[in-house]
Amino acid sequence: MIIIGEKINGTRKAIGQAILFRDKDLIESVAVEQAEAGAGYIDINAGTAPDRETEDMLWLIETVEAVTDVPLCIDSSSPQTLIAALAKVKLTPMINSINADPKRLDSFLPIIQKSGSPVIALAMDESKSGMPKTLEERIANLDVIFEATRSAKIDDTLIFVDPLIMTISTDSTAAVACLDTIKAIHERYPKAHITGGLSNISFGLPERGLLNRTFLALAMMNGLDSAVINPNAEGIVATMKAVDALLNRDRFCRNYTKAAKNSFKSC
Amino acid sequence: MIIIGEKINGTRKAIGQAILFRDKDLIESVAVEQAEAGAGYIDINAGTAPDRETEDMLWLIETVEAVTDVPLCIDSSSPQTLIAALAKVKLTPMINSINADPKRLDSFLPIIQKSGSPVIALAMDESKSGMPKTLEERIANLDVIFEATRSAKIDDTLIFVDPLIMTISTDSTAAVACLDTIKAIHERYPKAHITGGLSNISFGLPERGLLNRTFLALAMMNGLDSAVINPNAEGIVATMKAVDALLNRDRFCRNYTKAAKNSFKSC
Repeated sequence: MIIIGEKINGTRKAIGQAILFRDKDLIESVAVEQAEAGAGYIDINAGTAPDRETEDMLWLIETVEAVTDVPLCIDSSSPQTLIAALAKVKLTPMINSINADPKRLDSFLPIIQKSGSPVIALAMDESKSGMPKTLEERIANLDVIFEATRSAKIDDTLIFVDPLIMTISTDSTAAVACLDTIKAIHERYPKAHITGGLSNISFGLPERGLLNRTFLALAMMNGLDSAVINPNAEGIVATMKAVDALLNRDRFCRNYTKAAKNSFKSC
Repeated sequence: MIIIGEKINGTRKAIGQAILFRDKDLIESVAVEQAEAGAGYIDINAGTAPDRETEDMLWLIETVEAVTDVPLCIDSSSPQTLIAALAKVKLTPMINSINADPKRLDSFLPIIQKSGSPVIALAMDESKSGMPKTLEERIANLDVIFEATRSAKIDDTLIFVDPLIMTISTDSTAAVACLDTIKAIHERYPKAHITGGLSNISFGLPERGLLNRTFLALAMMNGLDSAVINPNAEGIVATMKAVDALLNRDRFCRNYTKAAKNSFKSC
């Protein structure tokens, strides 16, 4: 499982304030705790102020890279911010995100192709109103994306498909639909990774961690091999290790046993 | 999910002693705590002393039925004990168990047919040495059993198939094989229930509860709708409620939300 640590996001109040006031300590500690919990990438989102986004992003990159060797995931919809970020980073970062919108593909794909970055591909089209409701609409959006990435000579193994995880609190079929979509993506694009904002599944419900962990296990069985999550959330990394052991992805349960001895910390 | 509470088993030392010394208090408290945690049946196993089994079983029935209205699951390989137990119980109990051994089928099926009891059917044949290793062997055993139960006019809905859950600590393919078997049973015998000794999956490994809960979620997605477990084990009932909510088996997540408010106790 490839964990994309989600916590350094400027749209969250505490992080937004830390970025505004250049509070290095908070950003550093959030970066380090995610790295220590097993993040393979640390997402950095500078927030929603267009006039400051690039400057804030560069400060975030410098701040996070000073305390960890985990590669970053540059979370921005601005090609300018992305180009500046790619010139700044030490390690090749992941890019968050593309979708089936032709404008986004046109502006992002040349940058991604040049940098060799992995990229998150949302199964939606932001040029159309509303989120896709059915499996078929999501696959249709992905077909547009993969046609474009393949034309740009970007290997399928660099694509982290996000099937769009939605809460079951307003639509009780949402998790089943998502699990079906994950399975369909895994069959149609077997070399691509599958990721997503896991905690969306439980929005509006009590005991969210339990639903998140349980959904993670079901989604991993269907092909999810990455997640945009808080790796410090209780039991989330432990569940990943347990699923790997159960699904014969952990020879002699060695990783599981080792992680369990360490209480599933610093995996 | 139909929980078969596994704790009153005379082969466990404390329970064996309680049966021997007629310690009502212990048996009563173990019965009540399983009932309160959501057991749909309470398994009672009088232990392995053939000369005392029937007498001990009758005492267990009387003791447990005095404190709970949850039906029992009569766990015995002796037709004599079974007949005596069925004459004693207030509510129709489940019977634990039959397998593809022709002697067991011949002796048990007339009793089961007469009582109208649900019955656990192990996917093995105790007349043959060793446990079945492959999915095909297990299905072949079940085919023998279903041919016999159908001939005896016992409805498939009364059969609780046990696919034989084995630990991943000695065979790392065991969970995948079991999940495949559960899926195959669910497709071949869709009206039957699927149950099993869940905690076997984690035997010999650390943090067994985590593996048990995680395997439960995966198995439920494949068709498991019952389990022989300790319903008081941390998080086990909570995981069942979470899976039901995620798999659209809980309208508006009402059961989940209600159970969460009560910390998943007394579900």
